[in-house]
Amino acid sequence: MALIVQKFGGSSVKDRNRIFNVARIVANTHKAGNDVVVVVSAQGDTTDDLIAKAAEITHNPSAREMDMLLAAGEEISIALLAMALNELGCHATSLTGWQAGFRTDRAYTKARITRMETERISSELERNRVVVVAGFQGLNKLDDITTLGRGGSDTSAVAIAAALHADRCQIYTDVEGVYTADPRKVRNTRKLEEITFDEMLELASLGAQVLNNRSVELAKKYNVELEVLSSLNPVPGTVVKEVTKDMEGMLIKGVAKDTDVAVITILNVPDEPGTSFKIFGLLAQKNINVDIILQSTGRDGKKDISFTCAEGEAETAMRVLKESGKFKDATCDETCAKVSIVGAGMQSHSGVASKMFEALSNNNINIRMISTSEIKISCIIARDDADKAVSAIHDMLFD
Amino acid sequence: MALIVQKFGGSSVKDRNRIFNVARIVANTHKAGNDVVVVVSAQGDTTDDLIAKAAEITHNPSAREMDMLLAAGEEISIALLAMALNELGCHATSLTGWQAGFRTDRAYTKARITRMETERISSELERNRVVVVAGFQGLNKLDDITTLGRGGSDTSAVAIAAALHADRCQIYTDVEGVYTADPRKVRNTRKLEEITFDEMLELASLGAQVLNNRSVELAKKYNVELEVLSSLNPVPGTVVKEVTKDMEGMLIKGVAKDTDVAVITILNVPDEPGTSFKIFGLLAQKNINVDIILQSTGRDGKKDISFTCAEGEAETAMRVLKESGKFKDATCDETCAKVSIVGAGMQSHSGVASKMFEALSNNNINIRMISTSEIKISCIIARDDADKAVSAIHDMLFD
Repeated sequence: MALIVQKFGGSSVKDRNRIFNVARIVANTHKAGNDVVVVVSAQGDTTDDLIAKAAEITHNPSAREMDMLLAAGEEISIALLAMALNELGCHATSLTGWQAGFRTDRAYTKARITRMETERISSELERNRVVVVAGFQGLNKLDDITTLGRGGSDTSAVAIAAALHADRCQIYTDVEGVYTADPRKVRNTRKLEEITFDEMLELASLGAQVLNNRSVELAKKYNVELEVLSSLNPVPGTVVKEVTKDMEGMLIKGVAKDTDVAVITILNVPDEPGTSFKIFGLLAQKNINVDIILQSTGRDGKKDISFTCAEGEAETAMRVLKESGKFKDATCDETCAKVSIVGAGMQSHSGVASKMFEALSNNNINIRMISTSEIKISCIIARDDADKAVSAIHDMLFD
Repeated sequence: MALIVQKFGGSSVKDRNRIFNVARIVANTHKAGNDVVVVVSAQGDTTDDLIAKAAEITHNPSAREMDMLLAAGEEISIALLAMALNELGCHATSLTGWQAGFRTDRAYTKARITRMETERISSELERNRVVVVAGFQGLNKLDDITTLGRGGSDTSAVAIAAALHADRCQIYTDVEGVYTADPRKVRNTRKLEEITFDEMLELASLGAQVLNNRSVELAKKYNVELEVLSSLNPVPGTVVKEVTKDMEGMLIKGVAKDTDVAVITILNVPDEPGTSFKIFGLLAQKNINVDIILQSTGRDGKKDISFTCAEGEAETAMRVLKESGKFKDATCDETCAKVSIVGAGMQSHSGVASKMFEALSNNNINIRMISTSEIKISCIIARDDADKAVSAIHDMLFD
């Protein structure tokens, strides 16, 4: 008998039929002899509807009240799912975030989990109940309701799995697993059987959008084996774990793109110690996350520095640089994208990078910046070329 | 500076405009130098919508899950009202039932309040916050959410007022106060300035439907001064209290009708000790509430007994009597109504009863049963005559 945590997103419980679909998956898992904790998000558009209600009242809602409002969404979905499970003869108890023991810090709308008090969940499991837990929400030290922010329900599921030492945490989505590229945009993509936490983190931050990064980080930290799978199609999904089987010819796990990229270039900065610190210190003060940094070779005591950041932060970055007085010669290009290939151990295979560059070259796509790590290679290119680039690289590596 | 509890029902917060209307009333009360605790119900149709969602899932929902589901309704309305108050510059904190300290017994869907833990409300008031509390809900000893059943939000408001020793508990409704009869059906009705708890209890149980009986009982028990008033029309309402001013010519406080009445008559029961006990003991075992009892004078060792109960309980009552074997000669008339006049001290004014009978007689309305108490006189009549009877009695007493 195993302990399995299953997480279902809002679209999986959006109406009566979908709720019963989820209930059947859960009931079958329970019937097979497993203890089951289910984490659910708010139904379909509920969260958006609640946000719209708040927007009618004020453009600047208190974060505390926003969390109170949004937490109602999951209370509805957990009660309905518990009723559906009971209707199928599978005894279930719903628990809000605070009842399930999620204790968080005080950062309303983006709280972090500080502690799990698992007594209530454990006692319900001991009574042979399926426990249906409201994802996305917790309780802070003031006894106020908090929400965990984007991807919060995934994080809730992983946190429960970690605290209860669950055998597996299954994240049900509307795709069947993690693919070598976005199947809606690239032909001949393959579903991965397994992927490491690190690879998944790179793919997530590169825009693959299957799993929220925060939940993967948590899973890696507590070594919680994740499975990404479909709630509509009952086939095995992709397992995310610490070490994966060495699969022949499967060095590369995926090709991803991120179109939310701006490149800022500062020309003619002094080629002397401390320049980079000054620039990136200024940006850090404004909480601007810099991704790739490229620095030209110095000449005549001057050099050029380029870096990328999210498009939404580019304007602030430019203002900070201009106001500093020292880095006025800055330009910003907001028409960029990043394409990346991810795979553990690929750095020891020199052919991989050259294949990526060959694919881009064959399609006449110019590479503006290159960044490499142990498990990925990223290229900054023009945004208009992004989809073509992903397909070309995927064809070159996987066909 | 006073401490005032204000309660607003679902229709008072049904949309953005109504929420701001409520927020202005609350903010003005606070600005006038009072501490304010506001109790709100779920918005407009929210509760009905949630019940409909549950009905899609099952015809027999678990009571515990039903309470989890329904409690979400008030969480939405308290957050929105707190946002609106903040928007008006009036600092507010919303609290769920459990955060506000409502502790209840385990009777899901119809829980009774066992205790109030007022620390959180008090500390928010000390910070000069308006406290917006979710009505209708609490927490039981299992740490499960419960709801208080019909009229629960009124009861919540009175419980807070009692626990905090509030100076007044204002119940805002869609009428301006308590009237001498239903203003929609009877002409020349008058709004009462004051009414006693006992009179209000009689009027409520007689079908006047302004205040829930349970909340009036609680107010009487803890001597909480209630005011019933309109959220849309800012005029003084009706104050409900222990002792009212003696108002000249205002002996009668109201005329009410209750059309949910069945009369059961048992002919030829033995005129001996224990007969009544046998009959009403049988009915009590089935939780049937008997209202008026009439017994004929015995003759030839036999007598007749008539009693009234709610129409929905008449069928069970008849079955119990027939199955007993002893009281087979029972008939049931489900076309009855009760009209009543209520007023403390009217028993010492003999003219009142005769005026009531005169009004009925003038309109050719037959009286089947009469019941009197210190503060009311009730007559059982044919249901078709009920509206005419109320108008006739009201005309006779108030014109």
